[in-house]
Amino acid sequence: MPFSFQRMKSNEIYKGRVFTITVDTVELPDGRSAEREIVHHNGGVCVLALTEDGNVPLVRQFRHGADKEMLELPAGKLELGESPEACGRRELAEECGLNADSFVSLGRIYPTPAYCGEIIHIFLAKGLTETEKNPDEDEFLSVEYVSLNKLRGMCRSGEIEDAKTVAAVFRAEV
Amino acid sequence: MPFSFQRMKSNEIYKGRVFTITVDTVELPDGRSAEREIVHHNGGVCVLALTEDGNVPLVRQFRHGADKEMLELPAGKLELGESPEACGRRELAEECGLNADSFVSLGRIYPTPAYCGEIIHIFLAKGLTETEKNPDEDEFLSVEYVSLNKLRGMCRSGEIEDAKTVAAVFRAEV
Repeated sequence: MPFSFQRMKSNEIYKGRVFTITVDTVELPDGRSAEREIVHHNGGVCVLALTEDGNVPLVRQFRHGADKEMLELPAGKLELGESPEACGRRELAEECGLNADSFVSLGRIYPTPAYCGEIIHIFLAKGLTETEKNPDEDEFLSVEYVSLNKLRGMCRSGEIEDAKTVAAVFRAEV
Repeated sequence: MPFSFQRMKSNEIYKGRVFTITVDTVELPDGRSAEREIVHHNGGVCVLALTEDGNVPLVRQFRHGADKEMLELPAGKLELGESPEACGRRELAEECGLNADSFVSLGRIYPTPAYCGEIIHIFLAKGLTETEKNPDEDEFLSVEYVSLNKLRGMCRSGEIEDAKTVAAVFRAEV
């Protein structure tokens, strides 16, 4: 039983650096119309990089949306025209100082499909070698290594609260 | 190595029904200032309800943010002053026509901590009994039951793309 909606109108409310906001008028399946507030975001990438001895680099940083420090897999926003794999490789190098021989897709997630179009592409990276770190100039972060086994427990217990990290660890299970 | 940020200024750009947008000026740890675009959202709840024979109700509906139909656990926005458990019980009844004897927290997730303060509270509901469905008047959805075992496979394979659903299934594992 699929439901179709017709978008009648889309008013841009705000165009920012990270997202654009529109208020859309849609026609409901019963013919009435309704408003929907939408966040348009270019999408991002999240990387679970696994070392040969089973450890995973995590990034600790202050998150302004959550208004607190969080521990997450390395991740970042897609630049315009950038492929998800290129973005993931770039972020893994910039934030963690790592290159990867193998970079395998673990699919994608919609963090908040009700009101935001953002897609996060998830990758599993292996065959890691060191390269120079190069974080964005307004990023302040530290990198911590945790075993995949311990990380799995932290995601399931709720100690890790970042949705993309929880999803990536679940999908990386062997 | 924690990093502290001082919020210097917060300009409200848009105040909607689902979210509010501000552009904040923050002081970086090195003393420079930077702008951060923030989506403020009241938060939500997601419920994994498990029947005695191991099935889980999922909701299929069109999602305007993602601009497509998606299959997700029942979920909804917190009303002002509503507790997460009361919200979860309300949504499970409205969307799936179910009451639950047992309602246990599986923690919470931040879907997009970089730019949005939304928290989604996750619950595991058991001891289910039927009640009358009562979806919001502009919700159009259908309910489908899938075994928890099959749902786990769908989350891991990427067939389920909704982040809160993937996180909830991971945390509900026994």
